[in-house]
Amino acid sequence: MPFNSLAELAVFLRGFAAERGWEQFHSPKNLVMALSVEAAELTEHFQWLTEQQSLQLNEERREAVALEMADVLIYLVRMADRLDIDLLDAARRKVVLNAEKYPAERRS
Amino acid sequence: MPFNSLAELAVFLRGFAAERGWEQFHSPKNLVMALSVEAAELTEHFQWLTEQQSLQLNEERREAVALEMADVLIYLVRMADRLDIDLLDAARRKVVLNAEKYPAERRS
Amino acid sequence: MPFNSLAELAVFLRGFAAERGWEQFHSPKNLVMALSVEAAELTEHFQWLTEQQSLQLNEERREAVALEMADVLIYLVRMADRLDIDLLDAARRKVVLNAEKYPAERRS
Amino acid sequence: MPFNSLAELAVFLRGFAAERGWEQFHSPKNLVMALSVEAAELTEHFQWLTEQQSLQLNEERREAVALEMADVLIYLVRMADRLDIDLLDAARRKVVLNAEKYPAERRS
Repeated sequence: MPFNSLAELAVFLRGFAAERGWEQFHSPKNLVMALSVEAAELTEHFQWLTEQQSLQLNEERREAVALEMADVLIYLVRMADRLDIDLLDAARRKVVLNAEKYPAERRS
Repeated sequence: MPFNSLAELAVFLRGFAAERGWEQFHSPKNLVMALSVEAAELTEHFQWLTEQQSLQLNEERREAVALEMADVLIYLVRMADRLDIDLLDAARRKVVLNAEKYPAERRS
Repeated sequence: MPFNSLAELAVFLRGFAAERGWEQFHSPKNLVMALSVEAAELTEHFQWLTEQQSLQLNEERREAVALEMADVLIYLVRMADRLDIDLLDAARRKVVLNAEKYPAERRS
Repeated sequence: MPFNSLAELAVFLRGFAAERGWEQFHSPKNLVMALSVEAAELTEHFQWLTEQQSLQLNEERREAVALEMADVLIYLVRMADRLDIDLLDAARRKVVLNAEKYPAERRS
């Protein structure tokens, strides 16, 4: 099951939850708690590393980090699906705001 | 600047950081801290709501939530880019593991 | 209102919530969300600092950090009160477990 | 080793870290990351519970929750010690601010 887009991942996760009877637990309130737990499991890999070490992970650690990042993405996509939010379009709106808030020092 | 994929968002964010001289701050260690802060800003919208209320956001709240979810995505994509991790492929590997860990009760 | 102990702080916070009709919102589930939000507001002060800089805060930053740490403590104490948990006694039980898990390399 | 106060806990933890050579890792930046990870481990116990269920933990869960709350307290106290912050005094300053921000509806 390769996913070519966030939309495909959202559809897959919707079915995955439905098959397991998990929809009753997947309120946005509960999903944001799960998202924050996954963000912390990702944090745990980096808490005692120096910044430099955090850029030079060995392969085993890097794969563990990739799977924790996937967990964050999975709950983010699942939550967006429950709230009918288009994540890439929201990112577009947000970077417009960020560009206004933090103008680049010089643009050629 | 519409983004059609996570890959396009990653390229945009790489340029956005470079134009502002932010690369020196964007170690994975720092980025995971920023990610967890954004996850908490998202949590803040839901902390005093009931689960039912969390499913029925008014439009103003829903847009604020969408922009916070965008912030989580932005730092997740930026961090993945710094670690050369393909998020959708990591999600594929993770859901395979999840399917083994939590088999569906019945599949037709 | 100086607090000489966590117990005194707990009693004060109980009254503070009661006077404002907040008890209905103070389920442990909601309080742990609030606690994690405060932990992230604390994190925000440190996310772009080096470790060395994090040890050398100026006075303004140090006071802001102290107040965020107070918020974490406040929600932790409020949550413990709702669950009838004695935090200092739980810390005693936990450090016994930690001492077994991480024995000191040598003790004279 | 019963602790009668946060100050006693701080002194104990200082010795515990010193005996294990952990001081080099205990920058405030790293400690706030560890604190947020413990807050999330606490969150994990509540993420799929209803608010009502979160008030009615069985004894096994309640002890697990108590030990996670102890971990949050331990890192909070350790971080305060590194920054020379008096947590109970900071809580006093914070509740004064909170009382101004959220006045009680009526006071007799």
